[in-house]
Amino acid sequence: MTDCLFCKIISWDIESTKIYEDDTFLAFLDINPVNPGHTLLVPKEHFKDLYEVPDEVLSKAGPIMKKIANAIKRGVGADGINIGMNNEIAAGQEIFHAHFHIMPRMSDDGYEMWHGKPYDSDETKKNIAEKIRKSL
Amino acid sequence: MTDCLFCKIISWDIESTKIYEDDTFLAFLDINPVNPGHTLLVPKEHFKDLYEVPDEVLSKAGPIMKKIANAIKRGVGADGINIGMNNEIAAGQEIFHAHFHIMPRMSDDGYEMWHGKPYDSDETKKNIAEKIRKSL
Repeated sequence: MTDCLFCKIISWDIESTKIYEDDTFLAFLDINPVNPGHTLLVPKEHFKDLYEVPDEVLSKAGPIMKKIANAIKRGVGADGINIGMNNEIAAGQEIFHAHFHIMPRMSDDGYEMWHGKPYDSDETKKNIAEKIRKSL
Repeated sequence: MTDCLFCKIISWDIESTKIYEDDTFLAFLDINPVNPGHTLLVPKEHFKDLYEVPDEVLSKAGPIMKKIANAIKRGVGADGINIGMNNEIAAGQEIFHAHFHIMPRMSDDGYEMWHGKPYDSDETKKNIAEKIRKSL
């Protein structure tokens, strides 16, 4: 897509710091890393978000994510790795070309995970699950 | 593994609220959801974290994640979906059986994404990328 930042990075109209490339994916450093080494894994074809990415592309993503996670761990000496993917504005998506974040974490880096809270009742929980299962 | 909470859930020694099941994966509601409908997708075989999950299992995870994300979106009327995976204590992993979080988000739910900051120089950035690429 002509007005998509990641499409321009994939076509090298905009420079990036490449980490990995194959026929289906490009991975490059996020320019505003959570920690140095924070990498974005991006399908070369334009898909807006997870819902649009075809199964055959998604099938290839997992093993590549693991490979890059291991390389980041070794390369920057990370204590842990977060995988993240944000879909739609409400979930923090900023570039509307589907991408996975592979983020090195250090024990003392100060980032906090979100903490959820229990359901108000077992009935609410079962009701929610029923609605999701019916939508599968 | 006998002392693993998720293994006990998979063997039904501990009850969970099931969302999806196939030969390789079980998905069930997180009991402390970020928002109602927050689902965990877990390989049935015990692997500690992403680094341990075999490629053939990871290949199957992506398409199932999409399927469940769509069902959560429809089922609870979510405005967005975050995918997350925490590997090792430093990255917030609490149960040491690899799992993906599929989290519904609402426009006004108040959760904040982490904000990174730019590299101090292009040289630092290129140096970090070189270290990661050499570790691939």
